[in-house]
Amino acid sequence: MNKILVTGASGFLGRHVLLPLRTRGFEVHAVGRSHPPTDLAALAVWHTADVLQPEAIRNLLGQLRPEGLMHLAWDTTPGAYWTNPANLDWAAASLLLLSEFQRNGGRRVVVAGTCAEYEWTAGPMTEGHTPLRPASLYGCSKNAVREVLEAWAPGAGISWAWGRIFCVFGPHEKPQRLIPKVIARLLARNPVPFDPAASIQDFMDVRDTADAFAALFASPVEGAINIAEGHPVSIKSVLNEVGDCLGARHLLKFGELKANPNQPAELIAETRRLNTELDWFPSHSLPERLAETCQWWRTQLAPGSEP
Amino acid sequence: MNKILVTGASGFLGRHVLLPLRTRGFEVHAVGRSHPPTDLAALAVWHTADVLQPEAIRNLLGQLRPEGLMHLAWDTTPGAYWTNPANLDWAAASLLLLSEFQRNGGRRVVVAGTCAEYEWTAGPMTEGHTPLRPASLYGCSKNAVREVLEAWAPGAGISWAWGRIFCVFGPHEKPQRLIPKVIARLLARNPVPFDPAASIQDFMDVRDTADAFAALFASPVEGAINIAEGHPVSIKSVLNEVGDCLGARHLLKFGELKANPNQPAELIAETRRLNTELDWFPSHSLPERLAETCQWWRTQLAPGSEP
Repeated sequence: MNKILVTGASGFLGRHVLLPLRTRGFEVHAVGRSHPPTDLAALAVWHTADVLQPEAIRNLLGQLRPEGLMHLAWDTTPGAYWTNPANLDWAAASLLLLSEFQRNGGRRVVVAGTCAEYEWTAGPMTEGHTPLRPASLYGCSKNAVREVLEAWAPGAGISWAWGRIFCVFGPHEKPQRLIPKVIARLLARNPVPFDPAASIQDFMDVRDTADAFAALFASPVEGAINIAEGHPVSIKSVLNEVGDCLGARHLLKFGELKANPNQPAELIAETRRLNTELDWFPSHSLPERLAETCQWWRTQLAPGSEP
Repeated sequence: MNKILVTGASGFLGRHVLLPLRTRGFEVHAVGRSHPPTDLAALAVWHTADVLQPEAIRNLLGQLRPEGLMHLAWDTTPGAYWTNPANLDWAAASLLLLSEFQRNGGRRVVVAGTCAEYEWTAGPMTEGHTPLRPASLYGCSKNAVREVLEAWAPGAGISWAWGRIFCVFGPHEKPQRLIPKVIARLLARNPVPFDPAASIQDFMDVRDTADAFAALFASPVEGAINIAEGHPVSIKSVLNEVGDCLGARHLLKFGELKANPNQPAELIAETRRLNTELDWFPSHSLPERLAETCQWWRTQLAPGSEP
């Protein structure tokens, strides 16, 4: 199996997955609504199509006939994606994509899932054990696609895996999200009022997440699998690390805002499947990745600018 | 709310729902892939479109802008529909239909669900209580659509209900299905070798099912609701009733075939929601409906012909 198509390939996770797939010997094809960003053009054969347009997908898959599919495209507009009605369109597009992929000779598919499929209880979320009771339209729509994929794949002759991602950060994250926002404020030497930030989460650099997805695709591992560090840390400690990297820890004002009651106390992953079955571990420590991420944003943001 | 669009309107359930909707004062629009059957043409305003073609649905809903939607269309090819890969296409089409319906001012939707969404345990299946663990791709795909609908509807301002149907029979049933097949053989005076037929199920005439769907649409009842008689009977007793209607009980040879191990011992509905919240009861008894059904097939099938 050599030819793989990546959807969402110019997105946050997708752009980082192209190189690890090439490194593993795949002929990487990417689909995007417009021309690829310059830095990605050489990493894949790019095809222009809108995954939300069934006719476009039908044409592309009919012509390309990839044996592999990594489906990462979805609406992730910061804040809005939890409840965006577009989740229905993405769930529908995902099912049609799977269907057309199989019709055109597809063999193995890996899809980006989410920790939001789980019931957010305390303790590590474990594949096949923690109840799947998504509280959001986003989590519910992803979970619905997985349920259908799981029921359909064996009869359709499709090998499949579903990587559930947790708290991903790193280069090219959307600037409205937590870590880029904090970095931008600290680089501008503005104080950052914050809630107590006691929530324990599972942070992972996007480059490690992408490498794990590439490893997952290249493996025979099937089913849902958590893609996470498995080393939960408080948001406060992550932000302090960021503050230290930027020499600006004193600007972080924890406790000045009230805690968000919707924030789970814990959002952490059991990673036994990833570490044992896939034998995959991140190549860098979290502090190293946070330092690199701060450095990347420093090169992106002129002093004083705030996204 | 007056203008309602019915999908699958020339199908087994859909064709029977048009009149009960008109009787309740709705302006009934129907969508089908081709011209309507002659006997249905006057019962609705017919629109030609393929529900599986998103562009066609987008155009139709954009022009029609119905306040109501009764979505009954799905692949139900006898035997094949449990595992048919087309279930993915129907799930996707259903989500796109809901999405477009809401975008065009839709207000209330009723969708045909199935007892195959439930785990098939013994005892009556109860809404909100019996686990939803579909064992088939068909049940799983329907259930996935319902999950997304349930998560989406409140935020989208959509009132919704989901009628779960059990064992439906009656005029215009597909001739390859159990009751029409048995009737055809008995009308041709051929013996019908059968398994012990001990399975207890919940049979309902399609005209009653359709009337309950129309009543459900006209009501404010929300959520999943079983549409069934709630009077479980063995398949054997139903077939004996059919045999008596046709003066051919002696041709039914129970026990000559082995029982199908996949046949559930019981497949029965708790109907408290239907009877209490919706205050709906079937207007005819099961023996009356079976006799009418035998009579209808008698007029359809020339003696000696077997579908």
